[in-house]
Amino acid sequence: MRRAVRLAATAAGRTSPNPVVGCVILGADGTAVGEGFHRGAGQPHAEVEALAAAGDRARGGTAVVTLEPCAHHGRTGPCAEALLRAGIARVVYAVPDPNPTAAGGARRLLDGGVEVVGGVLRAEAERGNELWLTAQRRGRPAVTWKFGCTLDGRAAAPDGTSRWITGPESRRDAHALRAQHDAVLVGSGTLRVDDPHLGLRHGVTGVPPLRVVLDRDGTVAPHARVLDDAAPTLVVTGPRAPKPVLPARHEVLRVPVTDGALDMAVLLDRLWDRGVRSVLLEGGARLAAWCAARGLVDRVVACVAPLLLGAAGRPVLGDVGAPTLAAALRLRLDEVTRLGDDVRLLLRARDLPGGDGGPEGGGA
Amino acid sequence: MRRAVRLAATAAGRTSPNPVVGCVILGADGTAVGEGFHRGAGQPHAEVEALAAAGDRARGGTAVVTLEPCAHHGRTGPCAEALLRAGIARVVYAVPDPNPTAAGGARRLLDGGVEVVGGVLRAEAERGNELWLTAQRRGRPAVTWKFGCTLDGRAAAPDGTSRWITGPESRRDAHALRAQHDAVLVGSGTLRVDDPHLGLRHGVTGVPPLRVVLDRDGTVAPHARVLDDAAPTLVVTGPRAPKPVLPARHEVLRVPVTDGALDMAVLLDRLWDRGVRSVLLEGGARLAAWCAARGLVDRVVACVAPLLLGAAGRPVLGDVGAPTLAAALRLRLDEVTRLGDDVRLLLRARDLPGGDGGPEGGGA
Ligand SMILES: NC(=O)c1ccc[n+]([C@@H]2O[C@H](COP(=O)([O-])OP(=O)(O)OC[C@H]3O[C@@H](n4cnc5c(N)ncnc54)[C@H](OP(=O)(O)O)[C@@H]3O)[C@@H](O)[C@H]2O)c1
Ligand SMILES: NC(=O)c1ccc[n+]([C@@H]2O[C@H](COP(=O)([O-])OP(=O)(O)OC[C@H]3O[C@@H](n4cnc5c(N)ncnc54)[C@H](OP(=O)(O)O)[C@@H]3O)[C@@H](O)[C@H]2O)c1
Repeated sequence: MRRAVRLAATAAGRTSPNPVVGCVILGADGTAVGEGFHRGAGQPHAEVEALAAAGDRARGGTAVVTLEPCAHHGRTGPCAEALLRAGIARVVYAVPDPNPTAAGGARRLLDGGVEVVGGVLRAEAERGNELWLTAQRRGRPAVTWKFGCTLDGRAAAPDGTSRWITGPESRRDAHALRAQHDAVLVGSGTLRVDDPHLGLRHGVTGVPPLRVVLDRDGTVAPHARVLDDAAPTLVVTGPRAPKPVLPARHEVLRVPVTDGALDMAVLLDRLWDRGVRSVLLEGGARLAAWCAARGLVDRVVACVAPLLLGAAGRPVLGDVGAPTLAAALRLRLDEVTRLGDDVRLLLRARDLPGGDGGPEGGGA
Repeated sequence: MRRAVRLAATAAGRTSPNPVVGCVILGADGTAVGEGFHRGAGQPHAEVEALAAAGDRARGGTAVVTLEPCAHHGRTGPCAEALLRAGIARVVYAVPDPNPTAAGGARRLLDGGVEVVGGVLRAEAERGNELWLTAQRRGRPAVTWKFGCTLDGRAAAPDGTSRWITGPESRRDAHALRAQHDAVLVGSGTLRVDDPHLGLRHGVTGVPPLRVVLDRDGTVAPHARVLDDAAPTLVVTGPRAPKPVLPARHEVLRVPVTDGALDMAVLLDRLWDRGVRSVLLEGGARLAAWCAARGLVDRVVACVAPLLLGAAGRPVLGDVGAPTLAAALRLRLDEVTRLGDDVRLLLRARDLPGGDGGPEGGGA
């Protein structure tokens, strides 16, 4: 299974809207006779690849696979049927499929007379599919809010300067985070003040995420850096704003206004429809507050720099409407890492699994 | 030397205004023949204790001592002379004495024909005397600002509730910090809102620090918890405030008002005169800002809890008068530790030595 998890990871960041999956086939004598992984939407599932490699040697053998084999007729036909056809005697999988249209594979295999073992190395396999699994659980793209701030929670000085609060290691990490997400999102305040590019730089490679910027009034500057051709950009605007004129590869998306702001829940649904399963929210303070207050933040990555700016500095998070301590948003601190002069904290919503425990915690 | 450092640490937190010092005497044949440590003001210095234990066996031997032996006639006579009289041939010490009235010991020994080696295991020995050494360097008590806050830098909810943001492990750590300092200080806002006790609890033992509270207008409530008899309390008030009436063991100290606030630099001088070499500043936001803006904060201990309160929460640090990022106060992050659900960060002013590098750093 460890090998299957490693195989699955080969395609990390490239399979969306599908999960990463790895599969190893053992022959009847227990030796590995084939392996495969899912390379992305429209490509063969891991089991199909592995069965093809194994050929006849799969008969009477075991399929070890990181995710419960699917039972539905998608673009590639159900894997459960393929495993039955190949004469597999035993299927060992790590993570049950949370996707209601794909689930039922284990059942189908059992009904076909195959021995089925689930939950093997589950935590490890879940980590490899964390964002995809969160998206399935939530029924919307998984959202990671990423920010850099001072020790006292300031994201910019009183004069608005924020470059750079965190050090080069933290900035490189921010680009690596982008590569792990399908889309990266900023509010219109950040768009105007920072003119961010939102592409992959600092030596980070991978599929550049879809860039998504809020622009309720349709006033994005035609020379905004986010409108260059490094990656497609989605400009999100209100129902009645003038349609911004954009260079070729970019697009305008209209979403309704709720409570005076563009409705992020609707935006996430629209992004889902486009195959986006994970969104990196890069601020600013007001947009993050809107999302956090409505339970739309699944993970937080905070890079805290050893600086103090004081109460006149700009807060990293706007008003979330928590009047008392009891109403505060509670997360779980899962990882603590040094990044140059800064410290990086990874937190998750408390109903999500995961957690490495950080430098002194447990975790496998 | 390692043994001497360990001996010194035996009296940690009990020697103020003196440093901790440990000493091992080796006979002419290199075997340990005596050891000692300084137990506190008015008690024999470590060298004197160790020489007494060694007796005649010290002749022709080596004294290994964590701090440069003193050359001044204090309450106990100069240790350099005592070492010469005992016929010591060689002195090995870790940390040069930064105290101008005590320094000169190494010189006196060399002049007396003794071989002298300084700087051995210096970093380790300095750690044991960190606050005392900082106080000597600064010419005022060393100040540690300790706070607990949310991930977004809030010390209390909009309604003022702050119990408890951090978890029980962080609160216990706060009491251990108190035991390491000679005095603990809070502003009048915190005194009024939180009615803190500032004593040692949560199973922490040691010498309770002097409790120091600001009360410019002399209006401290006679039943304030800080006025119980767990430890002496100093109520700091302005030059013209009515003198608060206090229970027996407590005292009033008047300091001038500068820029509309009690002058903390003067307060630190007055505390120095009383033998205080280290102060734990426990807030609130405004007092911490006053001190931080004037370079009076040497170390920061931040316990960050996995909560978000948003911009309507109370900031952990008031206005420090830094209008731009370039004017931000820059510290050095030296230690990162998990404390239950929280993370504890130790930072130091960048001109101070030290730094364990945290979980992934270096450091010995
Ligand atoms: N340190 C960091 O990690 C970091 C990261 C990013 C930004 N920043 C800093 O943050 C500052 C910008 O933050 P900000 O709070 O002013 O702006 P923001 O959060 O980037 O954008 C807020 C604006 O977006 C629009 N918006 C549309 N729908 C919204 C919704 N559902 N929720 C919230 N806003 C919505 C609103 O403008 P309309 O009324 O025009 O629709 C709103 O004023 C800049 O100074 C930037 O440097 C720091
Ligand atoms: N989370 C934590 O770690 C933590 C710790 C402590 C407190 N707190 C919270 O912080 C809040 C209190 O903070 P705060 O900012 O209101 O009050 P504060 O900093 O405790 O006290 C400020 C007051 O002290 C007096 N003062 C005298 N000399 C001063 C000087 N040199 N600099 C600054 N102040 C001086 C002033 O009052 P006068 O004008 O009357 O002289 C000033 O308003 C409370 O809500 C408390 O719960 C949190």
